[in-house]
Amino acid sequence: MTTHELHPRPEQLVYSFGGHEPALTVAPGDVVRLSTEDCFGGAVRSVDDLPSVVCEFPFLNPVTGPIAVEGAEPGDLLAVHFAEIRPARDWAISSTFPHFGALTTTHTTPMLHEALEERVWVYDVDVEAGTCTFRARTGDFEAVLPLDPFHGTVGVAPAADERLMSITPAAHGGNLDTPEMRAGVTLYLPVNVPGAMLAVGDGHCRQGEGEVCGTAVEAAMETTIVVDVVKGAAPAWPRLESDGFVMSTGSVKPLEDAFRISQHDLVGWTADLTGLDTLDALQLVSQAGLAPTGNVVDTNYTMVAKLAKSVLGNAVAYDGVHERLKAVARSVVGG
Amino acid sequence: MTTHELHPRPEQLVYSFGGHEPALTVAPGDVVRLSTEDCFGGAVRSVDDLPSVVCEFPFLNPVTGPIAVEGAEPGDLLAVHFAEIRPARDWAISSTFPHFGALTTTHTTPMLHEALEERVWVYDVDVEAGTCTFRARTGDFEAVLPLDPFHGTVGVAPAADERLMSITPAAHGGNLDTPEMRAGVTLYLPVNVPGAMLAVGDGHCRQGEGEVCGTAVEAAMETTIVVDVVKGAAPAWPRLESDGFVMSTGSVKPLEDAFRISQHDLVGWTADLTGLDTLDALQLVSQAGLAPTGNVVDTNYTMVAKLAKSVLGNAVAYDGVHERLKAVARSVVGG
Amino acid sequence: MTTHELHPRPEQLVYSFGGHEPALTVAPGDVVRLSTEDCFGGAVRSVDDLPSVVCEFPFLNPVTGPIAVEGAEPGDLLAVHFAEIRPARDWAISSTFPHFGALTTTHTTPMLHEALEERVWVYDVDVEAGTCTFRARTGDFEAVLPLDPFHGTVGVAPAADERLMSITPAAHGGNLDTPEMRAGVTLYLPVNVPGAMLAVGDGHCRQGEGEVCGTAVEAAMETTIVVDVVKGAAPAWPRLESDGFVMSTGSVKPLEDAFRISQHDLVGWTADLTGLDTLDALQLVSQAGLAPTGNVVDTNYTMVAKLAKSVLGNAVAYDGVHERLKAVARSVVGG
Amino acid sequence: MTTHELHPRPEQLVYSFGGHEPALTVAPGDVVRLSTEDCFGGAVRSVDDLPSVVCEFPFLNPVTGPIAVEGAEPGDLLAVHFAEIRPARDWAISSTFPHFGALTTTHTTPMLHEALEERVWVYDVDVEAGTCTFRARTGDFEAVLPLDPFHGTVGVAPAADERLMSITPAAHGGNLDTPEMRAGVTLYLPVNVPGAMLAVGDGHCRQGEGEVCGTAVEAAMETTIVVDVVKGAAPAWPRLESDGFVMSTGSVKPLEDAFRISQHDLVGWTADLTGLDTLDALQLVSQAGLAPTGNVVDTNYTMVAKLAKSVLGNAVAYDGVHERLKAVARSVVGG
Repeated sequence: MTTHELHPRPEQLVYSFGGHEPALTVAPGDVVRLSTEDCFGGAVRSVDDLPSVVCEFPFLNPVTGPIAVEGAEPGDLLAVHFAEIRPARDWAISSTFPHFGALTTTHTTPMLHEALEERVWVYDVDVEAGTCTFRARTGDFEAVLPLDPFHGTVGVAPAADERLMSITPAAHGGNLDTPEMRAGVTLYLPVNVPGAMLAVGDGHCRQGEGEVCGTAVEAAMETTIVVDVVKGAAPAWPRLESDGFVMSTGSVKPLEDAFRISQHDLVGWTADLTGLDTLDALQLVSQAGLAPTGNVVDTNYTMVAKLAKSVLGNAVAYDGVHERLKAVARSVVGG
Repeated sequence: MTTHELHPRPEQLVYSFGGHEPALTVAPGDVVRLSTEDCFGGAVRSVDDLPSVVCEFPFLNPVTGPIAVEGAEPGDLLAVHFAEIRPARDWAISSTFPHFGALTTTHTTPMLHEALEERVWVYDVDVEAGTCTFRARTGDFEAVLPLDPFHGTVGVAPAADERLMSITPAAHGGNLDTPEMRAGVTLYLPVNVPGAMLAVGDGHCRQGEGEVCGTAVEAAMETTIVVDVVKGAAPAWPRLESDGFVMSTGSVKPLEDAFRISQHDLVGWTADLTGLDTLDALQLVSQAGLAPTGNVVDTNYTMVAKLAKSVLGNAVAYDGVHERLKAVARSVVGG
Repeated sequence: MTTHELHPRPEQLVYSFGGHEPALTVAPGDVVRLSTEDCFGGAVRSVDDLPSVVCEFPFLNPVTGPIAVEGAEPGDLLAVHFAEIRPARDWAISSTFPHFGALTTTHTTPMLHEALEERVWVYDVDVEAGTCTFRARTGDFEAVLPLDPFHGTVGVAPAADERLMSITPAAHGGNLDTPEMRAGVTLYLPVNVPGAMLAVGDGHCRQGEGEVCGTAVEAAMETTIVVDVVKGAAPAWPRLESDGFVMSTGSVKPLEDAFRISQHDLVGWTADLTGLDTLDALQLVSQAGLAPTGNVVDTNYTMVAKLAKSVLGNAVAYDGVHERLKAVARSVVGG
Repeated sequence: MTTHELHPRPEQLVYSFGGHEPALTVAPGDVVRLSTEDCFGGAVRSVDDLPSVVCEFPFLNPVTGPIAVEGAEPGDLLAVHFAEIRPARDWAISSTFPHFGALTTTHTTPMLHEALEERVWVYDVDVEAGTCTFRARTGDFEAVLPLDPFHGTVGVAPAADERLMSITPAAHGGNLDTPEMRAGVTLYLPVNVPGAMLAVGDGHCRQGEGEVCGTAVEAAMETTIVVDVVKGAAPAWPRLESDGFVMSTGSVKPLEDAFRISQHDLVGWTADLTGLDTLDALQLVSQAGLAPTGNVVDTNYTMVAKLAKSVLGNAVAYDGVHERLKAVARSVVGG
């Protein structure tokens, strides 16, 4: 097991999945310590830095990578375990953005209204205390919120030789924007091209489910991952595993279809893990499953279907890769 | 404070919201102990009782009531606190149903496929142990699941003199099918007609979010509620309050519009509770809110937007009605 | 064959389908000459009459009826042939309405924007010339548009003892808002209650597909219909037949589900009319069908699936009821 | 004006928009005679050639090109006039395809059903008679349908350096699958990269609106186009102009958002063409517009918003480029 470092300079960041030369090549089982910039490319630093002024489309939501994983071939599963996700600065940014968000006219749900006000919030981040602090822009209301860092954007090169903006969540992963992607979790992605071409970005100090206003508490991150490959086990859509749960995702519009994809996948996975037939698996998921929202603002919407491993008997996914990677993670970051 | 009993005979059950004479009239602050039948009208008692054979449309999903609340006038808010929701039998039922559910051709998402197999599951219910037990129909897989009883259907007479099937969730409440409607929670409904005309039914021993297969662990219930009226405070859509959270709901299709309604309402409620302006409230909800799915199978889909009261400062909703009703509840059911 | 007159006074208009005593009882094959008021109840008469001021919810979109048809029983088909639809005045109204329309924040697609401007347009109507004239409110632009009168709202009492606002389109008909409902067309509705309880309203001098701004060129109408009953032939959703086309409708959200319902029904109808199996009927509809939009603004959205009878061989629907009613129509209104 | 020939060999066909070297470079005003293969790559030639067997994902829906247009820069408008679209063979193919179509479980609207039967239909094509003939696969039903050839797929390299499968319709054009793209029409596309990089494919002898079964009457085509560039006039979404109509398109899910995009764009275009303010333009579109369905089966759904030029006064779009290209077309193909 080797530990790699990947700390790109600004001009080395990329803005899409697919079509890039690898920034790093690693072996299955290796550890990568990497840095990610925030979704604004670090250009928003005060409430006066309006994103629509200081950022330039399509140079939004940079990702670090891609990382080629040796031996990963189309049809394989890439496992990405998040050992640690640590905010790199003592501040973070959120904002509205013209024509973006769940409760505003957008380019894909266009109304005849003018755009909402563009407003920036700067959060204080205290990693040791585990908090980030919201301060209202009008009045003196404050709320100290728990840090719950995760990566909004993690994905591989898409199938069919596509090249997709980093802001799109889909079958290759990408901008899923689900708070479930936190440290301690293993993400399972399909491999579509040799080497998989993993990239990571869009760190969030925390985010409500749905990412209603369009952005989370956006932050640069120092992150440690462990990667592995399971031959021939490519899932159709990204899956996650934590110590307590298995999770399927779906990213498409409308939101009920994202829900359907995630639940359909979880029913199939449950059947695979338990030997239940499809309808029995459907029944178990129907009564024991959770369905938290990922995002309802990106180019596709994301839903998560989540089932406690405790109801799955002694089932173990992918031959225990989650536990194996967790052990590696412990060896490098403690915990 | 008076305690009423409401235990309808089968022929006294009703199947819609609106247009019924009251089965009981109570005063604000009163307690009602009531019985509800399951969504099958109790007709499904074994795996051989196929719902499509033993039930007859539209006599599905019976509700108990309506209960007229004295002094409730259009524009008022009806508060319904669930003091206790207790399964009435030691078994409960779930099933698939032809052309119903999130992962099957339905009458409103029609495909050219034949209906899925209709299958019934009988759960063992142990109220003292707090469990209900799933048994697969094929093979010997079992899972002991925690009891988490709630009512899928709670509502009042709709606005505009409408009369809606009890299986429809909408602005009047109805078949919201969210597990958040458990004991200890206060539901806030708009009053549309004099007396509000509250009805309750569709008890669930537990349910996964989304109610994917179309039914929960369906059970008759013995339930105790406390009702109250807040003058002139009608919410646009049903809201809930627990000890830890305020929650807004939206029920419509597509699912992203149900999400939008619930989040839009929660943003407005947050602004009201804190004095934040709209965009600051949006920001707080965006970073601190939860968005669990209610149902994705009924005539409207339901989403819940949920915010911890801890991030709202010392805000108190509706002049503390939740705490007041909780105190009454404690006096009658303990806890 | 008897010809009836039905010209309600304002206080006799109704605002919902279901739950009303018949205003008139007729026999199958009878003719009814009836008057309908516009969707504003005639209260908007100049550009200064803002609907949100002069109209009062829920007293919008009045319908004339209901008309009981002798012998119509649940499971039967009610055929309604439009012999003539004639604007009653030399002016008509269109408007925007706060929180209503396809390109604005609404109560069911809520955004954080203020409502769009409420604006009224008065059209000149010239029945003899067959025109209605649009005049811009700002500047002097005019456009003379062809009259194409139809009824936006035609329906029967709903199933399951429901009572629905007249602005809702669904399986019982109602506010379909499709320009296909013009004179010369026969509408086929399911009978849900004895007598069917037909009601008609919401005349439009013309309307673009989708009714984007939320209202058409709204007008009181003098209309002549011929009704008939086909025993046991209730369609699942409203169907229409013109001299050239058979048409199925679907009314639900999201719009793709309205599309699915209408196409699914048309595939089934095509199979019935031709003897084709389902996939062959699907193929024929896929290559020869049209799919014009009805409305994308009401409580349900409406799509129409439309197939030229010329591609159906010599198939005749419902034993030729359209031709029979057309002959009756000719005998009373000429043409 | 130069006339170019572009007749790719099979291995020269491409399957995506973006990231390809130009196959041909032309000047604004030039004519290109080009050949396109059908969506199956010509591999389906009889009812026994099942597409899922003889075709290999992602090598579906090949396009001819890309064609670089000199001087076309990001922000410009590319005008593509279809002078002639002529079926290349005397037969054409349609089929169902597993997990594809509007009335079946798909990868993005997944259900628990098995896929529908995969079935192929072979149409006789008679270009001189202007017909294509449907023959049922079961029974002896036939229907002679009018030829109405068009290209389902026409687009340019996408913005943001994306590379999209040719089966995706979006802002760059692509697989719009609208029958409006017939000979005599001018398509307006945004230019996103130098040279625009136009590609054309997916010829259809005809297609119903919505492409319900997932495929049209698919055929190789011999097509003649004329291209031009309007500086700085890039539309946000593809627009079309025929002799009688201006048309806007929207391609996204859900279908009501595709409708919104197309209508929103048409309202804006109407305002630009007439000088009307936004609400007056909305009113005119609402009463005079058409809204035919494009496709409800692809990775995005497509709606068309269509307005007769007769109601727009003497407005001329883009300084008359449609008329100019039509004149060139006449000079090369007659008509």
